[in-house]
Formats: sequence, structure tokens, C-alpha cells
Amino acid sequence: MAAAAPPPPPTPAPSAPTGLPDSGSDSTPAGHPLFSRIRLATPLDIPYIQKLIHQLAIFEKLAHLSIATESDLASTLFKSQPFQSFTIFLLEVSSRPFENDSAFHSQNFTPIERIINLDHSVTDPEAEAFVNGINGDVVVAGFVLFFPNYSTFLGKPGFYVEDLFVRECYRRKGLGKMLLSAVALQAARMGYGRVEWAVLDWNDNAIKFYEEMGANVLPEWRICRLTGPALEAYRDAN
Amino acid sequence: MAAAAPPPPPTPAPSAPTGLPDSGSDSTPAGHPLFSRIRLATPLDIPYIQKLIHQLAIFEKLAHLSIATESDLASTLFKSQPFQSFTIFLLEVSSRPFENDSAFHSQNFTPIERIINLDHSVTDPEAEAFVNGINGDVVVAGFVLFFPNYSTFLGKPGFYVEDLFVRECYRRKGLGKMLLSAVALQAARMGYGRVEWAVLDWNDNAIKFYEEMGANVLPEWRICRLTGPALEAYRDAN
Repeated sequence: MAAAAPPPPPTPAPSAPTGLPDSGSDSTPAGHPLFSRIRLATPLDIPYIQKLIHQLAIFEKLAHLSIATESDLASTLFKSQPFQSFTIFLLEVSSRPFENDSAFHSQNFTPIERIINLDHSVTDPEAEAFVNGINGDVVVAGFVLFFPNYSTFLGKPGFYVEDLFVRECYRRKGLGKMLLSAVALQAARMGYGRVEWAVLDWNDNAIKFYEEMGANVLPEWRICRLTGPALEAYRDAN
Repeated sequence: MAAAAPPPPPTPAPSAPTGLPDSGSDSTPAGHPLFSRIRLATPLDIPYIQKLIHQLAIFEKLAHLSIATESDLASTLFKSQPFQSFTIFLLEVSSRPFENDSAFHSQNFTPIERIINLDHSVTDPEAEAFVNGINGDVVVAGFVLFFPNYSTFLGKPGFYVEDLFVRECYRRKGLGKMLLSAVALQAARMGYGRVEWAVLDWNDNAIKFYEEMGANVLPEWRICRLTGPALEAYRDAN
């Protein structure tokens, strides 16, 4: 559970697709451009994902419940084609344009790139832990994990967003919106009927952010959970 | 959405596996036995499933939102191995023991059978619409639709129960519990970490029933939904 709670973004910074900067004649916009990219995660990204999950748990004050190891993730994720089951979009940022890395282009998904023009450059105290090993100056900044759900009323699949997380120093720049929008776009392209996720009822900033993105918060539904020994009891009884 | 709201069952009626009746020396228990079976649904069951979904929508006073046709269901369900994606357990009942129909036994799931001894036989006003075409005296009485979800904290899959429904004349006999227990048992057998579903906060009977089954109702989480034109807008913007 636990779609993280990105605070509402400020008035969005101007952005433009890579290669189409909105100022100047060379490929680097003025100011402090933050080149951002969303791509499908791969098994090589598991060390980053494990750290991001743990940071999300700390953010939600639920670190004691976050026990997934890299081995747990490796044995349960990336077992099927993207979008057919558990799927992760990874958010990467760089102070320089991304190299055109064809390894991240697939028939399933073409990476989404944006340039965010910032007034000040970002100081990332954890850059060393999140530097991408393949591209030296690229840093992992967040992720979204989602999977298909199903609406019997619509007779259509949708997506459920389990986690949405942006590392602290990259928040309030529209990156959470970029991640969630990528899932919504994918759902719309696939003809799916819904995107759903959960939010904590006291998190007014997150609720405002989600409503601004077009979502409704359903007031009457409560989530029921059967887990731990109470779940194991069903096996033991049979 | 919408795990239906079976009222809490009364003190469970005695039950025993088929072939092991709890009274008498022949294979038919005394009283009014209701032979019940849970098996994996197949594409042949879509007409029943479509009718059950519509009855669930009426039960929830949401019939206007229930627009799935048999064609919608046929094009979106049964596309992968059971338990890997959207999965349906069908509940059937009969006044006679089930024939040993090997067609419903698979390496994925062995049907679960129970005999429920009732004080009075059930009058089913819709029997004609729900008679199973293959087995003349077998009637479809309910279903549960579920699919894998994922807990990043546990690093494990689980199951999310989208719909749980028992037709009105078969309620209050423990059949809803039998369906939900079958999902919990399957999750436990697969080593999954959780079974989750949603309940309406005003449905005290359902909440009591679920708590008695070992579930916790999470008070703080709210479901967010992006659908319809608000979802389509993400495609149109790209």
C-alpha cells in the first residue's frame, strides 16, 4: 500500500521536450535545467528501488513495516512483460542532456523526457548512493510501482498505483506529477478504464494535488487487509 | 471496485467434505443438504458472471455504473494463467452431490466442495437463469473476482478481491465466507503476504463479518480514482 504523498507542485516550471529547448539556439536551456527521464525499470535497478522503498517507509513513519530485501524484490518483480503485472517506472535526473540510450527504448514503452528549468540547482546529499552505474551523471530520483486492476462494472482493466515516491531534494518540481501522469497516459493509451491509488485522509496536500490531477477521493470505501498470522491461519486450517 | 457485502453468517451450519457425510451411512446427509462447490471459472461461464456483476451493482445501488457486456468480459478476462492476473472463482450449488467432473480439476486449482446442512431447502426464483448448462441440476450462486497486488514493504505479491457476491437466496449460509476463505487459502499456499479488498464504511454487517474472518479495516486510507474524461485528458494532452 501507500501511494506516497507528494506535496502539491508549485506553478509548474516551464518545460520542453529534450532537443526542443524553449530558449537559446543550442540544446541547453538557460538557468539551471534539470533533465528528467521516466523509463521502465529493469532488474539492474533493484538496489535503487530497494532504497527508495525504504525511504518511502520512513516518509510514512512505517519503516518498521518495510522489510523487503533486494532478494525479495528480485524474486517477485520483473517476472512478466511490462504492464501485464507489477511494473515500475524509474525517474532519473541529470544536469546534462541524457545520452540517447537505445537500451531503454522498447516496443512496450518509449522513455518520457522533460527539461525542468529551475532557479537554483539542486544539491543532492545522496547523489553517491543513487548515481546510475551505467550513465555516470544520471541520478535516480524516484519511482512509481503499479499493476493492472479490474473493474467489473466497466468490464475493463485499469492500473492500481501502489507506490509513488520522489526523493526529498527533488520534490516540489513537478516530478511526482510527471510520474503519475506517465501512468495515466499509459492507461489511456491502452484503453483502460481507471487509475486508482490510496491516500492518507489527513494528508491534505496530497489530496489537493491528486484532485488537481483530476482524481476523485472516494469518501465511503475502506480498505480491509488480511495478513500475517490471520492469513496463515487459512493454510493451517486446510 | 466493490467487494460486496455479505451479511455476517449465522452460527455456521455443520459441514463435511463430499463423500464424508456427517450422518447416516449413505452419501446423502439428513435434512436439506446444499452441496456447494468452488471452482475456477472458464470463458463458458461469462453469461453467468455478467448477470452476477449486474446483480452486485443493483445491490450496491450502482446499477447505472455497471455497463460491462459479455463481450467486454470475454475480451478482457481469461487471458492468462489463473492467479497470474484477473481470476474468478465460481460458486455452484446443487441439491445432489456433484459429479466428479475432471474438467474442473487442473494443476492450478482443485475445486473445493462442502455440504451445508440446512433446516429448509432453498427456493431459487432465478434458478432457470443460472442453471449450469453442462450439469443439469447445478446452479451458479455467486463468484469472487481477484487479482495479484504487490506490497513493496513486504516485497511480496498478494491478492486484491475486487468483487465478492452471493445471490440473495443463498446468503446467510456461510457461502460468502467459503468464497473469501478460498482466496485466503490460495494466497497462503502461494506464500503471498496479504489479501485486501474494500468495504463501504456504513456497512456495519460486512465490516463485522470481515473482522471475524481476521481482517483489519484500515481507518486512514482513502481510495483515489482517475477515470472517464479526466483520464482520457492525459492521452489527448500527449
